Amino acid sequence: MGKTADVNNIGIVETRTIDLFTNANPLVLAKGETLAPITVAYETYGQLNRDASNAVMVLHALTGDAHAAGFHEGASRPGWWNNLIGPGKPLDTDRFFVICANLLGGCQGTTGPASINPQTGTAYGLDFPLLMVSDLVKVHRELLKQLKIPRLLAALGGSLGGMQVLEWALSYPKEIAHAVIVAASSRLTAQNIAFSAVARRAIMSDENFKRGQYLAENVSPDIGLSIARMMAHITYLSEDALSDKFGREKRPDKGEPGFGIDFQVESYLAHQGNIFLERFDALSYIYLSRAMDYFDPFSEPDYADAIKADPLNWLVLSFDTDWRFGTSHSRRIVRHLEHARQAVTFRELSSPWGHDSFLMEVAPYHQTLRTYFNSALDRGV
Amino acid sequence: MGKTADVNNIGIVETRTIDLFTNANPLVLAKGETLAPITVAYETYGQLNRDASNAVMVLHALTGDAHAAGFHEGASRPGWWNNLIGPGKPLDTDRFFVICANLLGGCQGTTGPASINPQTGTAYGLDFPLLMVSDLVKVHRELLKQLKIPRLLAALGGSLGGMQVLEWALSYPKEIAHAVIVAASSRLTAQNIAFSAVARRAIMSDENFKRGQYLAENVSPDIGLSIARMMAHITYLSEDALSDKFGREKRPDKGEPGFGIDFQVESYLAHQGNIFLERFDALSYIYLSRAMDYFDPFSEPDYADAIKADPLNWLVLSFDTDWRFGTSHSRRIVRHLEHARQAVTFRELSSPWGHDSFLMEVAPYHQTLRTYFNSALDRGV
Repeated sequence: MGKTADVNNIGIVETRTIDLFTNANPLVLAKGETLAPITVAYETYGQLNRDASNAVMVLHALTGDAHAAGFHEGASRPGWWNNLIGPGKPLDTDRFFVICANLLGGCQGTTGPASINPQTGTAYGLDFPLLMVSDLVKVHRELLKQLKIPRLLAALGGSLGGMQVLEWALSYPKEIAHAVIVAASSRLTAQNIAFSAVARRAIMSDENFKRGQYLAENVSPDIGLSIARMMAHITYLSEDALSDKFGREKRPDKGEPGFGIDFQVESYLAHQGNIFLERFDALSYIYLSRAMDYFDPFSEPDYADAIKADPLNWLVLSFDTDWRFGTSHSRRIVRHLEHARQAVTFRELSSPWGHDSFLMEVAPYHQTLRTYFNSALDRGV
Repeated sequence: MGKTADVNNIGIVETRTIDLFTNANPLVLAKGETLAPITVAYETYGQLNRDASNAVMVLHALTGDAHAAGFHEGASRPGWWNNLIGPGKPLDTDRFFVICANLLGGCQGTTGPASINPQTGTAYGLDFPLLMVSDLVKVHRELLKQLKIPRLLAALGGSLGGMQVLEWALSYPKEIAHAVIVAASSRLTAQNIAFSAVARRAIMSDENFKRGQYLAENVSPDIGLSIARMMAHITYLSEDALSDKFGREKRPDKGEPGFGIDFQVESYLAHQGNIFLERFDALSYIYLSRAMDYFDPFSEPDYADAIKADPLNWLVLSFDTDWRFGTSHSRRIVRHLEHARQAVTFRELSSPWGHDSFLMEVAPYHQTLRTYFNSALDRGV
């Protein structure tokens, strides 16, 4: 379906930027350091209604960006969640005002470790302060303040996006009426951390990483970053999805067996590794994956205090073939929320695509979100 | 338990070597190339009985070697399968004559891509011919011929070792009375191939790989090989085993959070990556992992012919937490063997350790092997 034929698309959209925080009033990070100014790239779709009661914020995952829906001028591919967001779509831009911002530490317009450090005139590199998920949330909150949205009808995110929703709702429950958490985790397992550790090792041991100063030297750790992406990509898909898609098919044009790209699945992975280099930065990968490793909000003894005082509504979704943040992760979230006397709707959805399902057009998943958002709006903030 | 206190240990053992094949009579490989001479490193334990009817050959996995049991002079650690092989152990060296050989393409004494090419005087590197699992078997058969063992009571192997057993038994069923295949596969899945592809990519894109000529330049692709090993190691263990062993524990001596080794699981993985460098060669990793990718004996239309004419006995074992070559792989083997009218005993064993279970002292597993071997010997070859 071409973009002109798809009447449900938003059409042309633009990424805007805004500068938040000042040296006089900087962002104070979880680990005590400060950061200012912070440029934030964001997009909005639909119209904010008069009492600002129809705002839904979309939080993106590790390698996402602010461009969630519609098309950038001249682009042939839409935003990363275009199947969900648009006129008449599950997150209906005829009804909702949708905001998506590139997160702190990212590399698609928001300040991150590849940004220029105003104090040195060169890229931060590893001088950029360590980030925690709570730091990402603080920047999102400041953006909403500037957009004059005191309270979200809903915050929605998958994977790291869902972790931001969880952190936000636990810490500032008055600011969110409905927290929607998809394929996320409240605490990475040893295996989750192990995969990320190997990815970071691949990046940081690339000869072009240059202790994080590769931008100043005009090189980039492409080999390490593509290896990290290839490995992570395997964990995003179910084993069956990979088998159904590629099986043991050989490349049609390949000659004798060797150590190159003989199998279709190798070709696919190499392609995923390569295209990733065009849109992502190695330092962002390191910083944001580490924020995920350390995320563990339910280990705070007072985690339940704020949401007990101001309960909100929760929708927690998992996918049955997700082996990165599978249903056991979601159940753990639900268990802790219910312990804190929250109203939680939990659903495990069937989908063949593994962790990546949260990005896919899975009918019962999209139907669940459509119903939930419409019902939330009808009930009011 | 110290080695002197363990009366069930074989004691001091030695690796021997033998030269097989000659230029006049070389090994003809599956892909048509020839190779000679081939040095093979092997060990034996126990005594061959008078009619050579008590010989059990142990085939090792991707990164194993000929030193399966006992201690090398001065060594503090025994061979890799010492919990299975020894006096009174499940594979009882008081009853059985056990042989283990480093496989073709390996790096622990048997000819492989890091060996000197007699025609050039330098290491083969990528000039070494591509190997298939059937080539590894041909070398084992030649070794047995030299040892004057016309028929094995049993061939036993886990993972790639089990794949060699399967290949051998399908092609030369008269040479094996009992084929014991543990945690193996008759055909890697797309996910299996994908993990190996990333591992090879990490090795071959290391700046010290030098197109496979690193030995001549006196360097080695240590970073790539350790990344390959770290990643593979994650797939050898169950998610629960990693969680039980490490959870989210931090290193006791670590300071502020950062991008180094903060979590215990990171420390463990880094250690695994490092010690691997001392005992394994990057080229062997590439060659042997590729042999696994291409292994697919049941795709041969005539796979059943030889074993229908000369049926043998099969024991196929899998572990319930193995997510590398899980039970579905074993079931596929059983299905094809039963289709070829073979007598197959299949058992899925419960063990917490994932794929690595085949190396561990899992009581029902060792009991199954003990019973099976003793009964095989009592029944005769």
